[in-house]
Amino acid sequence: MAQQARAIRTRRIILDSAAAVFAERGYERATIGEILARAGVTKGALYFHFASKEELALGVLSAQLLDEPLTPQDVKLQELVDQGFLLAHRLQTDSLVQASVALALDSGATSVDRAAPFQAWVDQVAEALTVAKARGEILPHVKVLDTAELFSGAFAGIQTMSQVVCDRDDLTHRVVVLLQHVLPSISTPAVLTGLDMSQERAKRLAADYEESRRRHEDADGTDAER
Amino acid sequence: MAQQARAIRTRRIILDSAAAVFAERGYERATIGEILARAGVTKGALYFHFASKEELALGVLSAQLLDEPLTPQDVKLQELVDQGFLLAHRLQTDSLVQASVALALDSGATSVDRAAPFQAWVDQVAEALTVAKARGEILPHVKVLDTAELFSGAFAGIQTMSQVVCDRDDLTHRVVVLLQHVLPSISTPAVLTGLDMSQERAKRLAADYEESRRRHEDADGTDAER
Repeated sequence: MAQQARAIRTRRIILDSAAAVFAERGYERATIGEILARAGVTKGALYFHFASKEELALGVLSAQLLDEPLTPQDVKLQELVDQGFLLAHRLQTDSLVQASVALALDSGATSVDRAAPFQAWVDQVAEALTVAKARGEILPHVKVLDTAELFSGAFAGIQTMSQVVCDRDDLTHRVVVLLQHVLPSISTPAVLTGLDMSQERAKRLAADYEESRRRHEDADGTDAER
Repeated sequence: MAQQARAIRTRRIILDSAAAVFAERGYERATIGEILARAGVTKGALYFHFASKEELALGVLSAQLLDEPLTPQDVKLQELVDQGFLLAHRLQTDSLVQASVALALDSGATSVDRAAPFQAWVDQVAEALTVAKARGEILPHVKVLDTAELFSGAFAGIQTMSQVVCDRDDLTHRVVVLLQHVLPSISTPAVLTGLDMSQERAKRLAADYEESRRRHEDADGTDAER
């Protein structure tokens, strides 16, 4: 377990370093040597985790997705709302998530499969919408794939705009606005009334997420001491 | 007039070249020398139109906005729909518009005011929504600025996603989906029913736009011969 905790930490250091070098130099110009120098790990350690620069890119790209599923809610659409709030929080606070999204949106990174993270988001949202549809939460005319792609694409855009304009300070508000404009077109009125799209919920979710992260890290730390 | 037509053409050649160099080398690394070499114009001609690399960036950025206003419609919200369709068409066909949006979304271009084009779009949309509100086309609860920012940000995101996934082949469809999801939340039912958000309208607008451009170019050409 101690070894595993160390490995997780080393992996994260390498990913953080790769993300920083990609952001500063651009993905195409970045070299493994620069990433090694910044991470301060051995070549062996890096290649143990990532066989190539492409694998490092995939690692950075996948960091925008949550490791663990959200707390299940009675209303599936509420989970979709929560997902948006949590991603906003992680974009505001986690430099690896920021770098991950920047890489996905970097039109200069021509040798990276930038469609993959978009597809992963579309899949997650489509899955939630499919369950919501089966439960009768959404209106019959809704085409799950169209709506899932709209959510993913629109979110990518509003977070970019928020970053450019105010370093993502107002991102939670923009997510509320997105939800308020889109959900009335897909949700049944009864479900819509019960949805909590408030900034207060966003804050509570963010606090719970940080609390859970701290607990994980403490657990890892204890393991590492043993 | 001949001189003016030549000047317009030279300006466009310089902008196209700047856009191409920014896209290939990244804005920060691009030099005026490279842009000159690609444009094949004299240093004097370039500096007559643009005093600095920053001014070239502003020129490229402003190319995403239309030179002329759209054909006015009885229903103001229809103009908003038309604007979305026309931008989709220009993003699909005009390399300068593509480069303009790429520059606005390039997080590496740190010395460019990337907020300016977003602000210009928000202003245009907010202006249309303000008129629509005064005419009673939109619901009373709508906050014009929030909705304008949502439209601009969401559009930026869906066009990025469309570019990454299929080189913007499906962009018109994605714009229809965006409109179908957002307009029911802001439009009065009577106005909503009369809006034409069809791909057929998008095609017609694109054809009219190209026709008008050709006429302008012919007129310029005739002037230049005189």
